[in-house]
Amino acid sequence: MPHLHESIQSQGVRLLIIGSEVTQGFIFDTNTQFICAAMFEIGVEVKEIRVIPDDKETIIKTLNEFLSKDDFILTTGGLGPTDDDLTVDILCEIMNVKAVFIKDCEKRVKIVIEKYAREAPSTRSRYEKRLYRQCRIPENAQALPNHAGLAPGIFISDYKIVSLPGFPLEIRNIWPHALEKIRQNVKSHFLSKTFNIWGVMESILYESLQFSKDSPNKIIMGNHSLAWGNQLFLRTSEENKVEYDALIQQIHEKFGANIVENPILAWIDHLKKNKLTFGAVESCTGGYASKLLTDIPGVSDIFPGGIISYDNQIKEDVVGVSGKTLEKFGAVSRETALEMALGGAKKLGSDITISITGIAGPTGGSEEKPVGTVYFGIYNKKEKSACTGHGYFPFGRERFRNAVVHFIYLMLYQRYVYYNDESLWLKTVQGQSFQPASLPESLV
Amino acid sequence: MPHLHESIQSQGVRLLIIGSEVTQGFIFDTNTQFICAAMFEIGVEVKEIRVIPDDKETIIKTLNEFLSKDDFILTTGGLGPTDDDLTVDILCEIMNVKAVFIKDCEKRVKIVIEKYAREAPSTRSRYEKRLYRQCRIPENAQALPNHAGLAPGIFISDYKIVSLPGFPLEIRNIWPHALEKIRQNVKSHFLSKTFNIWGVMESILYESLQFSKDSPNKIIMGNHSLAWGNQLFLRTSEENKVEYDALIQQIHEKFGANIVENPILAWIDHLKKNKLTFGAVESCTGGYASKLLTDIPGVSDIFPGGIISYDNQIKEDVVGVSGKTLEKFGAVSRETALEMALGGAKKLGSDITISITGIAGPTGGSEEKPVGTVYFGIYNKKEKSACTGHGYFPFGRERFRNAVVHFIYLMLYQRYVYYNDESLWLKTVQGQSFQPASLPESLV
Repeated sequence: MPHLHESIQSQGVRLLIIGSEVTQGFIFDTNTQFICAAMFEIGVEVKEIRVIPDDKETIIKTLNEFLSKDDFILTTGGLGPTDDDLTVDILCEIMNVKAVFIKDCEKRVKIVIEKYAREAPSTRSRYEKRLYRQCRIPENAQALPNHAGLAPGIFISDYKIVSLPGFPLEIRNIWPHALEKIRQNVKSHFLSKTFNIWGVMESILYESLQFSKDSPNKIIMGNHSLAWGNQLFLRTSEENKVEYDALIQQIHEKFGANIVENPILAWIDHLKKNKLTFGAVESCTGGYASKLLTDIPGVSDIFPGGIISYDNQIKEDVVGVSGKTLEKFGAVSRETALEMALGGAKKLGSDITISITGIAGPTGGSEEKPVGTVYFGIYNKKEKSACTGHGYFPFGRERFRNAVVHFIYLMLYQRYVYYNDESLWLKTVQGQSFQPASLPESLV
Repeated sequence: MPHLHESIQSQGVRLLIIGSEVTQGFIFDTNTQFICAAMFEIGVEVKEIRVIPDDKETIIKTLNEFLSKDDFILTTGGLGPTDDDLTVDILCEIMNVKAVFIKDCEKRVKIVIEKYAREAPSTRSRYEKRLYRQCRIPENAQALPNHAGLAPGIFISDYKIVSLPGFPLEIRNIWPHALEKIRQNVKSHFLSKTFNIWGVMESILYESLQFSKDSPNKIIMGNHSLAWGNQLFLRTSEENKVEYDALIQQIHEKFGANIVENPILAWIDHLKKNKLTFGAVESCTGGYASKLLTDIPGVSDIFPGGIISYDNQIKEDVVGVSGKTLEKFGAVSRETALEMALGGAKKLGSDITISITGIAGPTGGSEEKPVGTVYFGIYNKKEKSACTGHGYFPFGRERFRNAVVHFIYLMLYQRYVYYNDESLWLKTVQGQSFQPASLPESLV
């Protein structure tokens, strides 16, 4: 029998991912990052992660090895209806206990069988037996409710183990219960915090945060680069609280206007509160900005629609950009961006209208306007004001388009929500890439 | 000193991911799935994956444990310029050899320092020393060229180890060399194959492939569900070649029209070859279909643009759907879909024009048209033909939109490329959800 944990707190967490579908490369394992980031956030150390196939011998060997250490154990996978779901039986075998059925789970399985079962009578009893198999947990364990699936999570207090199913949605559903057990049983060594910092490149982020030069390793700073910017992770121990708090303040002072959970949600919220509508005229992003907005449910009230004027002919015929402007300044210019926003507002009837026109590449660049160049327009019909912006994101087509669409929503957030003052915003680091534009007389 | 491998082939691969950025949850580890899928494809078994922090003691302990087994070892991470990049030094320590500098790498570092270095003179020598640190490998090892970064990959023949950096782009760059070493040194137990099967639900895929009922576990079938359908993995041993080949034939017979690397690429190719243009009028997908198409570079010739008619007013004013049609049949109907495609063709000047109108949810559904309902239109101006389609994807907003945009490209691929015959296509499983529509007299 393995070492039984004392009733003291564990030093860290060891994570065991059970699933041949992972070792065989059938699926991306997104659970590891979810769990590790959650551990980081509560200041718990992940000592090791192992990914192993659904193989009984390997699972037993690994679990016994983990049980010999002074860490909390978190397993995912192997809880389910099929024969290769071995976790419950293995836990019972290791601890020399029986499996018991959980009444609540049996009730739910019964409903599923009545409502959805469409197995032929010949295979039905095998099918039902399988479904009921998921209702079992070791008799010394506690079931953690799972409302996204049938198999409950499992917590075994004496052994400091939490076992979860493998499906991401189910893990997220059981997670609050699992987290509670981890919090209660594992030492939290650290102060930690996560920021979403939009529209700031990783290199600039680090250059701006020079704090660590003098005190290396005192504060751990980690980074997850994403399409919209960076997720910044900070961690330190209690004794560095003074430096840690100072750093957090420094980050807020330097990047306050860029720290936001999601500027698109804030922008939608602003439009709804002020009963405004929003339209988008896109060229190089080909509908991506509108796609991002309509990913969010409930935007019908604020988003009449958009126009994708990929070709100049559409800019002229559908949006109403003048042929002269296109000829004189080119499709990728402040002037065209402005007319795209104004024309879009007219066609779409939107109160605030943006435009995006740029060179995503890999071809189409010139010396004057290299690949990665983009111009924006923002027209506010009610305020009778407009501005145009310029950006340069020379990171290849995919990263260019990602950067551009997320940048324009960040700008709308900063202009209308964070600063809510055009002249203040135009003076900021990123606002400086925009400048006011005069409207044609007919619109003044 | 650890067990030295005999010059026989290893039984499988053990994967060691070294990186505190993974155990701390800062990044998604996408390398594991890339490597495991590649191993599956060449029929090599991944016995175990371990993810550990950049901690010297843990790395040595784990490597020694791995070396005591009869498997090939693949490590990622810990090759780089900083102090926590420990892999080279640890390999040298374990094998009791010195590190040597690789001339080719030194040359490249020199160029980088000359061209890009912008460190202050005070910190410059430390910076340069760090960069050169990456040029080292153990003296008994072979360098695997890395054109996406500075640190070479490492192959140690006697110990059957390949060590790669952690950055995904660099791994992909060195990969052909790493794969060659693995192929030469690891037993390939299996026949294996991967299919991209678009637009078929996982449950239907499995129900259709009943082969395994009689011979369970003879052929391993795995699945990776994605936005566009399923990636199906097959694996078996040489002695099951007859059943395996029969299954592959069965899959081609049942799903031939759905097996395609990417129908969007095939569709673009078709348009280019036939000098045709394509336009999209989208409602519920809010620009997503156009976004997907313009993800691909070089589509200016075939894609003039699109209209996102999210609101009915835009369907009327910009696209030209008649108010009567909207009132009588509703925005989500065959009739509106048809007029959207016809109106879009007029506005956009496109030869083939599609329309999408549906209910993404979570609200807006009715008994007659529940959330998940969608109608499509396809209008071919040159052929003077049109059809409308109906779909039902009740999987929540995000999956609905994913399913809808990928489905319509699959249909265009089947209609114009795979069958290239409307009447044949309309009789197929998925083509049946479409039906021909009559054009207004003005267009006939």
